[in-house]
Amino acid sequence: MQFQFTPIGYIHSCYKDRFGTPRQPHLAPDSWAVLKLRPEFNLREALDGLEGFSHLWLIFVFHRNTNRTVKAKVHPPRLGGAKIGVFSTRSPHRPNPIGLSAVRLERIEGNELFLSGVDLIEGTPVLDIKPYLPAADSHPEARGGWADERADTRMPVSFAPEALASLETWLDRLGRGPEHLERLKRLIVQTIQLDPRANCYKGTPDEPHPYTDAYGFLLEDFNIVFQLVDDGALVVAADPWTL
Amino acid sequence: MQFQFTPIGYIHSCYKDRFGTPRQPHLAPDSWAVLKLRPEFNLREALDGLEGFSHLWLIFVFHRNTNRTVKAKVHPPRLGGAKIGVFSTRSPHRPNPIGLSAVRLERIEGNELFLSGVDLIEGTPVLDIKPYLPAADSHPEARGGWADERADTRMPVSFAPEALASLETWLDRLGRGPEHLERLKRLIVQTIQLDPRANCYKGTPDEPHPYTDAYGFLLEDFNIVFQLVDDGALVVAADPWTL
Repeated sequence: MQFQFTPIGYIHSCYKDRFGTPRQPHLAPDSWAVLKLRPEFNLREALDGLEGFSHLWLIFVFHRNTNRTVKAKVHPPRLGGAKIGVFSTRSPHRPNPIGLSAVRLERIEGNELFLSGVDLIEGTPVLDIKPYLPAADSHPEARGGWADERADTRMPVSFAPEALASLETWLDRLGRGPEHLERLKRLIVQTIQLDPRANCYKGTPDEPHPYTDAYGFLLEDFNIVFQLVDDGALVVAADPWTL
Repeated sequence: MQFQFTPIGYIHSCYKDRFGTPRQPHLAPDSWAVLKLRPEFNLREALDGLEGFSHLWLIFVFHRNTNRTVKAKVHPPRLGGAKIGVFSTRSPHRPNPIGLSAVRLERIEGNELFLSGVDLIEGTPVLDIKPYLPAADSHPEARGGWADERADTRMPVSFAPEALASLETWLDRLGRGPEHLERLKRLIVQTIQLDPRANCYKGTPDEPHPYTDAYGFLLEDFNIVFQLVDDGALVVAADPWTL
């Protein structure tokens, strides 16, 4: 028995690729996305009352998965190489590649929902929007299993002067104000401090950078490149990729 | 563009039909369900680590919908007749009939997950299980829109002596102990006190019972029948339907 669903809309996101996209939406509060709903719905009616909610659930498809088979055990980043059952993780590589994220609703304009605090990649197909109901959905007392013992660690992130100068120059050419620069810098820090690298790239004390010593990801208009230095990360380049 | 999903398993629930099934899982803490996973997964591996979590998300299909078209506005029970956009509700009648519930995980035995605090109907196809992660999923501060102003009301529920006697007699014949009776009585109260009747059945002060003056729903082995009396509900019959 199979069930077939058609997306109600698609995501336009600050995150353009898998690498760099946070594993959970709350990890990068300055991240943003716009959910553009398909115009054939009677949207003015279907969205009536939604503006009163501060948070929404998005149910979406992990459309950028490339795996052809699903493994029963996966390697979540926080377990640093150890494996655990796929159903006890939020891994995208699951029998049905369906994602679930609680995001903040900033505002609604026509058929566009402006969201913040997201872990969504550009082009993500969205199957459903539901209001976040604290009485039903908020369980602060819930035991978080293995994830409780593996809190997210954050590393310090700094900017090389040439990376910062490039951000300033190009944002200015794009006509964006100084608040945009400050927000984008915060978002870069929020994204890198979680260490977005896959486990296999993290190396060992003997061989700390087995494949590459610089990592790039696409964020808004920029290809952000960072290196690991001492106990933190240094943003070494921030060049536009859209121009 | 369409996406196709195959259920990972199906629900066996205390609720056998739509009528009586709570609208949200936290409303009836003594309710229960068993999620039986399809045996073709390597379940011992895929469930590894899940037992450490107290709560799970289930993503499932509203398989008992009978509507053929989806309306942009729906009548949620708490609005008592007023309409609101479908995306600002948790109504089952949505463009993609996908449900989302946070439930308690009691224990795992082989390919069976024993759950409590559910709003799931017998036979529900489940598409995904995800661990509940308080850091990502719990937002007690979230603003609940129209639902905040419409708290669930609860009415007193009492039992007619013959209904109670029938429960006792049949549970005894089914070999169930006195704890089962106490739990089932609590569950009946939890289910009825929310007033499971659709708006159109609730009538008006002039005509309080426009269609019927007794309402029945299937709960475990029993057809529970209640009537509205004064300001509460009276369980007038509890006969087995499975024997």
